Formats: sequence, structure tokens, C-alpha cells
Amino acid sequence: MIVVMKVGTPTAEVDRVSEEFRSLGLEPEKIVGKHKTVLGLVGDTADMDALQLQDLSQWIESVLRVEKPYKRVSREYRHGEASEVVVSTPSGAVTFSQHHPIVVVAGPCSVENEQMIVETAQRVKAAGAKFLRGGAFKPRTSPYAFQGHGESALALLAAAKEASGLGIITEVMDAADIDVIAEVADVLQVGARNMQNFSLLKKIGAQDKPVLLKRGMSATIDEWLMAAEYILAGGNPNVILCERGIRTFDSSYARNTLDLAVIPVLRSLTHLPIMIDPSHGTGKSEYVPAMAAAAIAAGTDSLMIEVHPNPAKAMSDGPQSLTPDRFDQVMGELAVIGNAVNRWDAKPVPVLA
Amino acid sequence: MIVVMKVGTPTAEVDRVSEEFRSLGLEPEKIVGKHKTVLGLVGDTADMDALQLQDLSQWIESVLRVEKPYKRVSREYRHGEASEVVVSTPSGAVTFSQHHPIVVVAGPCSVENEQMIVETAQRVKAAGAKFLRGGAFKPRTSPYAFQGHGESALALLAAAKEASGLGIITEVMDAADIDVIAEVADVLQVGARNMQNFSLLKKIGAQDKPVLLKRGMSATIDEWLMAAEYILAGGNPNVILCERGIRTFDSSYARNTLDLAVIPVLRSLTHLPIMIDPSHGTGKSEYVPAMAAAAIAAGTDSLMIEVHPNPAKAMSDGPQSLTPDRFDQVMGELAVIGNAVNRWDAKPVPVLA
Amino acid sequence: MIVVMKVGTPTAEVDRVSEEFRSLGLEPEKIVGKHKTVLGLVGDTADMDALQLQDLSQWIESVLRVEKPYKRVSREYRHGEASEVVVSTPSGAVTFSQHHPIVVVAGPCSVENEQMIVETAQRVKAAGAKFLRGGAFKPRTSPYAFQGHGESALALLAAAKEASGLGIITEVMDAADIDVIAEVADVLQVGARNMQNFSLLKKIGAQDKPVLLKRGMSATIDEWLMAAEYILAGGNPNVILCERGIRTFDSSYARNTLDLAVIPVLRSLTHLPIMIDPSHGTGKSEYVPAMAAAAIAAGTDSLMIEVHPNPAKAMSDGPQSLTPDRFDQVMGELAVIGNAVNRWDAKPVPVLA
Amino acid sequence: MIVVMKVGTPTAEVDRVSEEFRSLGLEPEKIVGKHKTVLGLVGDTADMDALQLQDLSQWIESVLRVEKPYKRVSREYRHGEASEVVVSTPSGAVTFSQHHPIVVVAGPCSVENEQMIVETAQRVKAAGAKFLRGGAFKPRTSPYAFQGHGESALALLAAAKEASGLGIITEVMDAADIDVIAEVADVLQVGARNMQNFSLLKKIGAQDKPVLLKRGMSATIDEWLMAAEYILAGGNPNVILCERGIRTFDSSYARNTLDLAVIPVLRSLTHLPIMIDPSHGTGKSEYVPAMAAAAIAAGTDSLMIEVHPNPAKAMSDGPQSLTPDRFDQVMGELAVIGNAVNRWDAKPVPVLA
Repeated sequence: MIVVMKVGTPTAEVDRVSEEFRSLGLEPEKIVGKHKTVLGLVGDTADMDALQLQDLSQWIESVLRVEKPYKRVSREYRHGEASEVVVSTPSGAVTFSQHHPIVVVAGPCSVENEQMIVETAQRVKAAGAKFLRGGAFKPRTSPYAFQGHGESALALLAAAKEASGLGIITEVMDAADIDVIAEVADVLQVGARNMQNFSLLKKIGAQDKPVLLKRGMSATIDEWLMAAEYILAGGNPNVILCERGIRTFDSSYARNTLDLAVIPVLRSLTHLPIMIDPSHGTGKSEYVPAMAAAAIAAGTDSLMIEVHPNPAKAMSDGPQSLTPDRFDQVMGELAVIGNAVNRWDAKPVPVLA
Repeated sequence: MIVVMKVGTPTAEVDRVSEEFRSLGLEPEKIVGKHKTVLGLVGDTADMDALQLQDLSQWIESVLRVEKPYKRVSREYRHGEASEVVVSTPSGAVTFSQHHPIVVVAGPCSVENEQMIVETAQRVKAAGAKFLRGGAFKPRTSPYAFQGHGESALALLAAAKEASGLGIITEVMDAADIDVIAEVADVLQVGARNMQNFSLLKKIGAQDKPVLLKRGMSATIDEWLMAAEYILAGGNPNVILCERGIRTFDSSYARNTLDLAVIPVLRSLTHLPIMIDPSHGTGKSEYVPAMAAAAIAAGTDSLMIEVHPNPAKAMSDGPQSLTPDRFDQVMGELAVIGNAVNRWDAKPVPVLA
Repeated sequence: MIVVMKVGTPTAEVDRVSEEFRSLGLEPEKIVGKHKTVLGLVGDTADMDALQLQDLSQWIESVLRVEKPYKRVSREYRHGEASEVVVSTPSGAVTFSQHHPIVVVAGPCSVENEQMIVETAQRVKAAGAKFLRGGAFKPRTSPYAFQGHGESALALLAAAKEASGLGIITEVMDAADIDVIAEVADVLQVGARNMQNFSLLKKIGAQDKPVLLKRGMSATIDEWLMAAEYILAGGNPNVILCERGIRTFDSSYARNTLDLAVIPVLRSLTHLPIMIDPSHGTGKSEYVPAMAAAAIAAGTDSLMIEVHPNPAKAMSDGPQSLTPDRFDQVMGELAVIGNAVNRWDAKPVPVLA
Repeated sequence: MIVVMKVGTPTAEVDRVSEEFRSLGLEPEKIVGKHKTVLGLVGDTADMDALQLQDLSQWIESVLRVEKPYKRVSREYRHGEASEVVVSTPSGAVTFSQHHPIVVVAGPCSVENEQMIVETAQRVKAAGAKFLRGGAFKPRTSPYAFQGHGESALALLAAAKEASGLGIITEVMDAADIDVIAEVADVLQVGARNMQNFSLLKKIGAQDKPVLLKRGMSATIDEWLMAAEYILAGGNPNVILCERGIRTFDSSYARNTLDLAVIPVLRSLTHLPIMIDPSHGTGKSEYVPAMAAAAIAAGTDSLMIEVHPNPAKAMSDGPQSLTPDRFDQVMGELAVIGNAVNRWDAKPVPVLA
């Protein structure tokens, strides 16, 4: 922090304020100019509030923040190197990172029954996906809406995992469920609505499974990185950041605004890998292919795409889901862009019936 | 829901679509016009997705929502009557409701130590407040920031309660803490960041204490009411809705945008009582008096105002806190407006030393 | 501006950068500390871009803005005193200012015909309004919508002015119309959509009539004040700032979000008088009374309220208009708040038939 | 529009309301069901307000909009075909359209002097651009900032056009300048701040030059298309829609949020060609390459990129400008994506010294 004192501040006041800063654990370095005195504060100011420091004296003209509030997630923390989040799956380890092929995650919003989840898993595997997504516990705006099949859905995910060889990503809504979910899931998802559920973040940070942290609907980049910082500070370095659309003033067509500029922004700020979810990001399946292609061109490390065998009858989020057939086509289109940027390894794989 | 079929839709297709609606548990009422056929869907469409229904047939021109998604919180549910949330405090029952005097809640962001919380409680009681607010468990953007003193702070709140006779309102961040907090608190607060933490809402709905539900930073009115619906659906009818500022494009001066129009809007939609928090709503103590007065004039049932004995040294949210002396003055100013609208009963009360 | 140089910056580089600043017309004051060197830039930095200055050297750690970008509109420019915008009307001079009674402006969105505008004028005058609003030239989203009756409506406004004794406020959409509008209007309105139509602002600033400057739908406070600065810099000091609702993420109930916190915010930043328009600010007549009352309690200097004799058949903006009868009632309710804050002088006046 | 009457509405009231609709020029088609009666309104409802129609009777339960408000810009208006905006330049006709190669527009924010604009033109031409952008009249937030060199800059643009063979795109801020600008410019730009300056739109629509219509900072898709509709309704069918970033809640890193989903959204709604401006869309040159690549992958028809020979000393918008050398590299990177989607024709061209 930089504290600018007003012109004419008495030396005694500068000394008094400096003492106040010391009592807050900061070492003020006094820089005396011809007109003004400036205090550079050395110490842990990450969580200090500039407005609050300003209240310490009427002679303070302004307090300006210089440092970023996050540490472990910052690119500098790893000396500029990208981190690699390596996830073991039945088909081998898969790496999410800036210098690896793009990882595609696909599957339905909710796990509805064994047949649909197993078939979907096999279809998306065949098209090149490495992970199956599917909700067992679903955050729903209405208490009367389908809330997911819960634990019984976890067994179905396990069946789909075995049948397809895909890794599993599913959401944790309640810290009490972490253990049971972690038995099946290879990556634990923290949803957008829980991005600042700090109790959950602490518990997720205290366990070992890699974490997919979705951006809150109106979270700033700094808040999102600080949420990830909670997990890293808890001891778990394996966090993937997933942009899924922010809330803006127009939701007539695309339900959310997919903020693809986070890709170059995050790249410069953090070492963590980046995922883009164009399905939630737009809310409409017809916009998904273009935005998935855009995400690849912009440099994403991963994509999450909703696929459902019968979107019109999906128990949740049908309008944003692709059918397996359409997903096959889209993966073909994405391969063109993925190959152009030398980050495509999602070759269609025949799956035995 | 109203489903408009395209001009020229074959009768067989109308029948097929009708059958599809029946399979979703909806009874379609067919309304045949000269050019178009319209289907009125009777049944529980609260959580259905208009886009998704549209996918059922290429012949559907549009699907239009008519009903509100919430029930128990709706004004109609109580036949137009306002509900009364009655909270017992050491000084007697206090009622939050449209037809009662405005209830003032005051206190610091965090409980820091016994002396500060007891003194603050006595001061705000003397000025006319009926409840003490104070955080034991604090949601903080940074994992390195002061997170509240936790359970030990609950004991301090109990001491302040005893010393002042005020009711206690404090935040629950983790469902695991509900019981211990409920031993001291008279109202359990769900914070803005947890407004859509549905696991927490369900557990809060399953217990008896009245609940203060803060609006999420970018929650729509409907989402906010649906979050309250979770609590009512869980069996707890005692919910107070608290507006605390929404996130918009300009935070240079006021940190958030206090959306006072929620007062007339909520009044027409719900029977639940309304609280306004101008402290978080603006983030700056100098804007608090004007916005508190505005809230009263607009018809709020309650106010939550941050008061701290030494804002410049507060462990959290100092810049938005009033000193006890300033709070005394502000209460005097608010009384003028409160009396003008016949809803003021917060007379200063001498407190014995 | 404060320029913070990185630790270890060579003296020669500090000198080079200082020279660059001088070439931009700024005098850098060097402040040398133990670890870091800071440059304080003296001069006109109002329009300089911190990011751009940062590009001058790889050794610059950060550039921090201290000064506000506006001058003539700032409260300091008038040594802390509120300005008075005095407008002559057929019934005498009316003053818009912090230390004067609240001025009420009322009338229809559009001037539709002589009878409706004259009758409306007489009714709102009788209820206590000092100015008639009414659009001759209307900004409409659709080119196919009623665009206002244009010049012929100006004659009708003149008739209403004569019949009622009210001052006239109407919008200028095209600089080419300024002269003809100024023959009738006592205050020229710049609409929200033209708040950053800088060509228009310059021409409005170059003429004498007082100006009502509406805030743009997504204009920051600083942008709004800079738009006013254009007018003052052009030579016209008589500007009234009108908040009319900003665009946020939820328009299901209130069409816009009325940002009442601008009242205390603007009060601290500028000497210019403040108007609140709860009609456009909410878009729905049933929310207008509560928000008008709130604006008075928060300290507004003026109110603009839409009144139409038959809102259901209004040619524009009917849903947000009050009927004359409802306006009478509302003025009675507002008088209670206005009297409580000692700023009400809008006594109902009998108008001769 | 669909008007839903409440259960139990008397027939006489349905008839009365129907008569009211007829008086508004709408033909109501009555559709009588078992419980409810619905009126389908046939006629020009593009600019009618659902809320306002609802006020016609207490028996109206809801009014639902079915139709889009725009006509000439809609994809249906051209039977699903994309339109082609053909612009003549000294180097031949250039076509902006969905089925043509991507057109690159490049150049500085402002025209500063002859040498810089001519050299920039030659450099961007050599790298593959087809148009030079450069402001003569500049919209600036501050009245004290550089406002562009005005007419004298037009002469410099003419010189750059002759020297490079590029077409010219420059902004019109004042309708009074249209003629003089049209002597040099091949495409007239309407800036974001003037997107709803309807007077300007009408005059731009009444002349022949193709128009680049930038999206307003908080304009919805519908408002943007309606602004284009003004131009087409005026007689000028040659409009290119340019997304340049919208205003959201976080501007810490990217200044605006580039809304790339407009590409698939607009494609389905309108026949008009689409341009993306990643320079204004992010405000920072380091984010431009990724977002330009993303725009191509998502299907844009055109790109606008700021290039300045010395960004650190640019008179405006330096931080978002690429140097000519960096632009050369970026064009090479974009060619990879452009070729992958078969829409690249911007081959580097040697320019004679």
C-alpha cells in the first residue's frame, strides 16, 4: 500500500500515523518529497482495506493498493510456470495444463438413470472426451424441482465410469457429502453458487481430490482467485478454474455472458489451468459449438460440454445440451481449431458395444 | 404456461404434443382459434423451463410463462395479509412486520472482544435498537483475513445479550454450527454469499429459529424469493428478507448499489417482512444516514446498521461503521422520518452503567 | 498521479522516465525511499491514462490516480458551497438547490394534444408542481414508434405554459432544434441516451438555458459528472443532475434500478443540484410513490414524476404514469416527508377553471 | 401479443377489451377455453408495451410478447440469406458477409499527424488489413482531453488512403459533419455512445455510405438491432454490426467484457454482417490476440484492431494498441485460425517504400 499524506501534514502527525501502521503489523517506509510525504507500507496488506486505513488520520489524502491479494494461486508463486493438475482415470492419467492437449469433459446435467448415463458416457468417450460430468446432487433454484438422485446417482456414475473408462466430475453441494462423493469422483466440482461458500472451500482444501472451481455468477476475477486461494491455502494445490458465464443486463438470447477474456487474463495472473463451460455459459445448445471453438482459439486448457441423449426430456438444463450425435459433429469441428493450435488429442475412439 | 402453436400445425401434432405434456404431469387445455391453437398448461410448472418445452416440437412457436415460481412466500398464499415474524428477546417479543414499528438492528461487523461488544450493545440499546448484530463466523474474501472468533465469540454475544437485553442476530456459515449458534442467537442470518447454498437453506428451514435471509449480490428478486421458499418449504415460516446492495458496474463511491425499489416490489409479491442494510448496501458510513432515512420513507420494516466503537481499527468492515455517538445522532434523524410515517418506536432508553 | 518504480530501478532510468513525463507536460517530483522511488506527477493529469503511463518503462511498478478528473462541477470548485440553479417561470423564479424547497416537475411522457397537455398542466400545478415536463421530440427504441409531435408539440407546451403558469422542461435530441425548443422551454433536457453525445453537450453548453442532464443507463458517477463538466466548460453553469435508474441484471419488476445513493454521493462530490426521476427509475407507477418519498428522505433537491390523464392510452410510457387524481394523493403523502425534512413548499394551489 | 384473461372474466368485459384493442389498430382473435379466454392480437405490436396493454382492464391476467420488434434487420426479412455489404476501396470492392473472407480493419485510435497515419496505413496494409481506422472526431469522456484533429485529420486520412490503397473507416459524432466525412470515408462509424442517438441514426440512414454501428456499452441485442433498424428504415441497407465490449461489474483487468456469444446469436437473428473489436473490447493490447483468434473461431465476418506506431505516446487509447511489429505477428497467428475455418484471405502484401 502507498499512503499519500496531504500537503502540509505536520511531522508529528506523520510519526503518529506511522506508529499506527506499526501497531497493525506494517512497516511504513517514509518517503519525503518537496511537497508531499508518502508512506510505503511493507507487510501483509492483502486483506487490509484502503478506506479503513484512510480513516486513521484526517491528513491522509489517499491510500492506494499496489499488491495483489492472492499469493499461492499467483503465477509468480510458481516463478511463471503453469501448474499441471494430473488426474488419474481408469484410462490413465489426464493432465490439465497450459502445455498439454485440451481436455474435454462431457455429459448430462443430472444423472437420471443407469441406461442414460452409461450410454452417454460411452458416446462421449467415443467422441474424444476424457471425463464424464453428471450431477448427483443438483443446485436448483426451486425447492420443488428435481434435486438430483443423490447417493444412488453416485452408484450410477460408478457404473458409467467402469463401462466407459472415463474419469468422473461431479458437484459437491454439502461438505458432509465429500467422502461419499470422493469414492466415485475423480474431480470434485464446486458450483458457481458456492464459489464463496468459504466453509465448503476450507473442507475441499483439506482433502486430496482435484477440484473444479466454477466462477460465481457475479464474481470478479480477484474474488474467484481468492476462492481458489482458500483451497490452496488448505493444502490442496490441484484446482482447475472454470468460467461458466457471468450475469449481465441481457439474458434474452444467451442466458449468461461467457467471459472468454478470462483466458488471457488468468493466464497472466495464475498458474492454474483453465476450463470453459459454453453450455452453462450460453444456456442454449445452438450457441455452444461457436463458443467452444472460440474458447479453444483463445487458449483454454479444457472444455465442459453438456450432452444428453434426449435434451427435450432432460430433468434439468435440457435446452443447453447437445445430443450425442450433435456432439460427435461438434467434436469434429472443434478438432479443426484444436489441431490448428496444436492442442488436440481428443481423437474419436471406437467403443465396443 | 401458455404454448402457442404455429399457424398450420397439424391436429395430429397438437395431439402428440398434448400427450407429451401429460407425460410431464401437465394438463393441456386446448384453445382453438381461427389462425392459431394455444395450449394452456395446468399443473406444477414452477420449475419447468420454457425453452425446454419448446424443444418438444418444431411446431411450437413460443412458450410463455404466466405463473410465479414461488408459492409459500407469495402474498396470495396468505390471502394478501402481511406475516408477522415475532422474535423473543430478553426485553420481550419484537415483531417484524408491515404493520408494526420499524425494528432497528445495530452492532459491529465482527465480535472482537467482550468489552467492545458489551459496550456497543449498551450504546445501541440506549439509542433505540432492539437487536445486536455481530459476527462470530465471518465470510471473508481472503483466507488470510480475520475469520471471526467463532465459538468463543458466541459466548461474548451471550454476555452482551445479558448486559443489554437486546436480541442477537448472527450469521451461520456452516450448517454444522447451527445448534451452537442457536443457543445464543435469536435470529439466524444467512449471508449474501450463501443465499443459494441450498444445503444450508434446507437445514435452516428444518429448525425453529427465525431467519434473516440476505439477498445475494446478483440475485434476482425471483431467485431471492425462491431461496426463502426453500426455508418455508422446510417448515420454517419465519423469514425476514434483507436487501444489502447489489453488484453493478460502478463501485467507485458506494461499494454496492442499494436497491430500495425492492421495498414496494416485495410488498406486492410477498407477505414476508423486509429489512434494509444501508451499511453493506453502500460500504461507506457517510452514506448510511441518507439511505437509512430513504429506506424508512420507502416503507421498510427494519434496518440493519453497523456500529463500531472505533471504526478505524475495526477488524472488518470499518469504513461502513458508525461510531456510537454518530449512531445516536442518526437515530435522532431517523426518528423524524419514522414518526412522519407513524412507524417509530425506537425511543432512546437510558441504560444503567 | 503517483508512479511507483520497481525496487532496484537504475537512477538513469528514473531520470529518463522523468524526462518523458516532462515531455507530456507533467512535473515529476522525485521521492526517494530506502527501497523504492516514487514519482509524484504535478500537472494536468485529468485525462491521462494510468495504463498508458505505465507503458513508458518496464521499471514502472504501478501508476496510481489520486486526483478526480472533473473540476468545474466539483464541490471544491465552489469552496464547498452548493450552487443555485435559478429558473424563471411565468409564476416567478424557481431555485433548484440543496438549501431550497424541493422542486416538483410533473407531466406526461409525450405531448399528445392540446387538451391533455393543458389539463395535465393545470392539474399538476394545482397539486404543487412548479414545472411541466412533456416530450415534443421523443427518443424511441423503435423507428416505427411514435416519435413525438415535434415542433407542433412545442406550441402546445407554450399553450400549457400560458394556461398554467408552470415552467417547461423538454428534451433536446438534436442540436439543430435547440433554438426552437429554447423559445418555449425554460430548462433543456439532455436524455439518458445522449448523456455522452459530446457534440450535443458542447452546443448545450454554449447556450444560456439551464440544463437537465439525465444519467446514462450505465454511466458511472464520474462519467456523469464529466458530461456535466462538458456543459460547464462550455460556459453554462446551470446544470441539474437527474438520476433516472440504471441498468442492472434484473428488470422483471422494476424496469431499472433507481440508484438513490447518488444523492449522498453527489452531495459530497459536486455543488450541482440533484433531481430524482422515480417514474423512469422504476418503470411502473405503483412503485413511484415509495421511491419519491425515499428520494426526499435521502435529500434530493427535485423530483420528476410522470402524470398522464389516461395512462392506459398514453402514446408512450403509460405504465409508469400516475393519473392526476393519484398524483394529488401522492403529493399529499410526499408533503409529510417533505415537511419532516423541512424542504416542502409545494402547497396545492387552486386553479381557476 | 397474447392476452390472457383471468378465470371468470365476464363476456362483456372480453368484448370491451377487444374493442379497445381494435381502437389501437389491433385485431384480437378470441380463443375460448374451458377455464380461460385468450386473445391473440394481430397487427403491428412492435412498439406496444405489454405493461400498458395490461392496464386496459383489471381482468387481464397477463400480456405476453411473441413477436420480435425488428423487421428489416431480421434474418427472415431476407428469407434466411446473409446480406453482403460491399464497400469500394482504392484496391477494389471489399465484401463484409458471412460467406466471404474475414475483413481486417486496423489503425490508430486517433489520427495524430501525417507521418504516423501514412506509415501505420502502409504497415497494416502490408500485414493484410483492407481498411484503415482512425479517428478525426473523437468522443472523449473529458472535455479537456484531446478531441481529435477534426477536419484537418480528414485530409490526413485521405493522404493515407492514397498512399496505402486502404479503405477508410472513421467516426461521425455530429450529423453536421456527415458530408465532409463522407468525402474521405468509405464506411461511416457510429460509436457506442451514439448507438441510441436517434437523430444521428436517421440522418445516417438517409445517406448512402455503408455504416459501422457499434454496440452501446449496455445495449441489449434487441436495442442494438433496433438501432440498425433505424438506419435500414431510413433507406440505407448497408450496416455492419460491431461488438466492442459491454460494461459489467469487473473492469480490473479487461476494461470491458467482450461478448463473443453475439456472433452465434446475431447469426440466427439478422442477415447483417458482424465485426468484433477486441481492442476496445478488452482495453489492453496483451489480451487482443487471444480474443481476435476467438472471434474468428466463433465465426465473425470482420475484425477491428488498434495499431499505433508508439502506443506509449498515443494521444488516446494507447494501452489497447498493438505496435505494427506486434500486429504483423498477430496477423500470422490469426491466419492459422482463419485458414482452419476457410475464411482467411488477408495475405501479407509487400508495400513499396
